[in-house]
Amino acid sequence: MAEALPGARLRPHVKAHKCTGLATRQREVGHRSFTCATPREMVGMARAGLGEDLLLANETLDATRLRTMAECGARVTVAVDSDATVHAAADNGIKEVLIDVNVGLPRCGCAPDDAARIADLARSRRLEVRGVMGYEGHVYAFTEREQRAHATEVSMETLLAVHAKVGGDVVSAGATGTFDLNTWATEIQAGSYALMDTTFAPMMPQFRPALYVLATVISANDKHAVADCGLKALGMDHGNPTIDDATVWLVSDEHVTFKPDRPLHAGDVVRVWPAHVDPTVALHERMHVAAGADTGAAVIDTWDVDLRGW
Amino acid sequence: MAEALPGARLRPHVKAHKCTGLATRQREVGHRSFTCATPREMVGMARAGLGEDLLLANETLDATRLRTMAECGARVTVAVDSDATVHAAADNGIKEVLIDVNVGLPRCGCAPDDAARIADLARSRRLEVRGVMGYEGHVYAFTEREQRAHATEVSMETLLAVHAKVGGDVVSAGATGTFDLNTWATEIQAGSYALMDTTFAPMMPQFRPALYVLATVISANDKHAVADCGLKALGMDHGNPTIDDATVWLVSDEHVTFKPDRPLHAGDVVRVWPAHVDPTVALHERMHVAAGADTGAAVIDTWDVDLRGW
Repeated sequence: MAEALPGARLRPHVKAHKCTGLATRQREVGHRSFTCATPREMVGMARAGLGEDLLLANETLDATRLRTMAECGARVTVAVDSDATVHAAADNGIKEVLIDVNVGLPRCGCAPDDAARIADLARSRRLEVRGVMGYEGHVYAFTEREQRAHATEVSMETLLAVHAKVGGDVVSAGATGTFDLNTWATEIQAGSYALMDTTFAPMMPQFRPALYVLATVISANDKHAVADCGLKALGMDHGNPTIDDATVWLVSDEHVTFKPDRPLHAGDVVRVWPAHVDPTVALHERMHVAAGADTGAAVIDTWDVDLRGW
Repeated sequence: MAEALPGARLRPHVKAHKCTGLATRQREVGHRSFTCATPREMVGMARAGLGEDLLLANETLDATRLRTMAECGARVTVAVDSDATVHAAADNGIKEVLIDVNVGLPRCGCAPDDAARIADLARSRRLEVRGVMGYEGHVYAFTEREQRAHATEVSMETLLAVHAKVGGDVVSAGATGTFDLNTWATEIQAGSYALMDTTFAPMMPQFRPALYVLATVISANDKHAVADCGLKALGMDHGNPTIDDATVWLVSDEHVTFKPDRPLHAGDVVRVWPAHVDPTVALHERMHVAAGADTGAAVIDTWDVDLRGW
């Protein structure tokens, strides 16, 4: 990714790993600006010395959290999409904002024709308007690359038209799924590429899944095996995880029941690959960095998942 | 629940709330024995002074975790279902076990006709065999109460036949969904009843959902609203959450997009009810106890979700 989008062309999204240890690696390969989804991620990045240019690509009205971000020592920019979010930012010491524009995904973001008014309001409150952002997340509905490219272009036409009225240097957009399609944004907010997951990997084969839960078989018979990794260790919104050389049958709170291709025994270890990486990391206290791909690979480093919570 | 299954007839399962503050309430209404799914739950309960009779209703081969449980000061019983789990328990200082029997759910538990052999092995390793356990979780497939009752009876016939050969005082089984159907077990392992969720509530109307995520609307227009509660705050394996007086459209990492029946505005608060309570609590650091059912009810207590992790 750092080759495709070097330096400031990429603003890595830390929500996908919630880990300053991994963010440090992203900084080492040239990215000095980061995207966050929660105030806790912002403050944690600042504490880790990664606060050169942090964007909260999300709205918040929480006065305490806004003030904590404003006072965390980092360069802090927050997204705003309404009068209420502008006033909350200004009232609580935030200095810089991006105008968040709805470019097709039904989520946050103002209507495109309201963006200039919100920018004016922000400037009247002495906020620096750095530009615009708009997340084209709806294009993931298209599994065909060409359709995704077209939908991205339509969204970015909207965002650039808004940018022309709002001003500022920044047009922030995108994601891993559009990193090589979105040529209009000045910076891409990609997160998943760093760890990937089984849902996303077929769409973006440039990036290999790196994150699995190493689980121990605790029960096995001639029909199935059970490992000690369940709903509390896996993001399940995109469905069941995948286990190497096995068919997953059932996931419960602390178990995964599966049919292995070859017999397994209590004590064997298996790799459990989550369907969605972001909510998976949020369930774990730390990640272990393995020296190789096999289950017995040595652990060469351990990173705290230190950006959890809100 | 304490009226239906007083005292030792219920062995509350703490996996559903992971919270010694709530377990303390369960003890106050008469339950002194508890069920856990993880070593961390066992040790946390012991530390909180709730270790009179703790059952790990799950297998583990982890020597460190077994030893930590054995030395935690509580009365500790663990489930075993194989030679390997018996030896791991005996080798690491565990003194008491239950023989875990497969009574229909494809998960842990030995074959019924192997239980007596495993009990003999356990006794040969100087482990006290307190009895048997068998979780009839497969009966949840039947939404009709009569079918559930019949399937429970079939499972418990198996378990009682095994118990006659294994010996001991304990026949541990069940769950919230069979608490009033399973009249064969000496104790019921029910957890969900304490907090409930939207998936389970229609099946068990005796217990009302008590746990919601109080979320703030951060963006709203005439088509939809967005609140600050997403995949990292909700157990999603049973699908989307429910919001009072609204239709949920979309859940992303830190957002829920929904169509409210009446217009909402940035700053309004909504109750987001999870579809599955157990993995929801595992995502939160604490629970706030509200004095009433409305969104503005006073917080009268705060309980740490202190039994998370493994």
